[in-house]
Amino acid sequence: MSDRRTEILIAATRVIARRGVRGLRVGELAAEAGVSTSLLYYHFTDRAGLLRKTLEFISDRADRYTAEGDSAGYSDDPRRDLEQVLLLELQDTPDVRENSTAWGELRASAVFEPDLREELARATHAWVHDVADLLGRARPEATAPAHTASAERLTVLIEGLSARWLTGSMPLEHARRLLREAIEVELEALPAVVRCHC
Amino acid sequence: MSDRRTEILIAATRVIARRGVRGLRVGELAAEAGVSTSLLYYHFTDRAGLLRKTLEFISDRADRYTAEGDSAGYSDDPRRDLEQVLLLELQDTPDVRENSTAWGELRASAVFEPDLREELARATHAWVHDVADLLGRARPEATAPAHTASAERLTVLIEGLSARWLTGSMPLEHARRLLREAIEVELEALPAVVRCHC
Repeated sequence: MSDRRTEILIAATRVIARRGVRGLRVGELAAEAGVSTSLLYYHFTDRAGLLRKTLEFISDRADRYTAEGDSAGYSDDPRRDLEQVLLLELQDTPDVRENSTAWGELRASAVFEPDLREELARATHAWVHDVADLLGRARPEATAPAHTASAERLTVLIEGLSARWLTGSMPLEHARRLLREAIEVELEALPAVVRCHC
Repeated sequence: MSDRRTEILIAATRVIARRGVRGLRVGELAAEAGVSTSLLYYHFTDRAGLLRKTLEFISDRADRYTAEGDSAGYSDDPRRDLEQVLLLELQDTPDVRENSTAWGELRASAVFEPDLREELARATHAWVHDVADLLGRARPEATAPAHTASAERLTVLIEGLSARWLTGSMPLEHARRLLREAIEVELEALPAVVRCHC
């Protein structure tokens, strides 16, 4: 990826996290990224194209920070790996706060901007897939559909907990505790959920 | 509540569900509700006051439709009551779709509009309290803090599932199935969670 293109995506994420998708003006963003408006359109075609690529960028960045401290792959404790990867999504660091804010805002905007939905579904699917893999390593005796359902619940929970934290409805430490318990509860239930046809 | 005041709140919910909080202009809303802008300011003081009261209105309306078919109080099957009340939040009816869209949008906007946070935390707290009561009836042997933690997770999950449904990342039936399984999983774990100091 060209440096200029990356700089535009970094600036777009920052602007979305600060003012929301609806507060993002292409001209202002170009100024913030230090590029011309025409270069921005050259790279992303239009505003919708820019938003889609920003979503992809945010999703990739989350992959990177949840893989931190783990550059050599997973440990021999799959349960700890799972907890660590998921809890890294709920941290009060500038990067995670900005990423979570921008992701939540793009999710919320997609209710009103159908152009965003396909890319959002794709990024969500990839995230669920990664978490399902971790669950599969921690509970190999359960089936793949059960891993996927658990992964869907845990990722939905992370989105919802981030929203409560970022809107002051819940302290971060409490959100992290609820997530740790949810992981516990899902892991315990996993073999049983296979039998649940509810 | 005066009829005019209710009409304004109905119109505000509809406008937020259609165009988002950021698409809500007080003048346009007054026209939509068939009242003067000055009457709107008379009832709600300012835009922030209007948004806060709309949040309260949406929260009360959700209380009403989740109590449907249950006007005489709960049945003698607390587990079924719990499932029924929670699943009523995920329905493809115009009312629920509008309410969920507006609630999700107010949640997302509160990231950028601190004025909304106190009312949002209050409404969230009341919702968690109601769900914790239902969990307490279904699992009286668990402690109140365990009921509250489960209720927080289940309500967070409903917000997150609604967002995935409303953005086309997940079909409604699938969201309902994940919620049914989550209720199952939380109920099974409830007595155990008391012992979890993770």
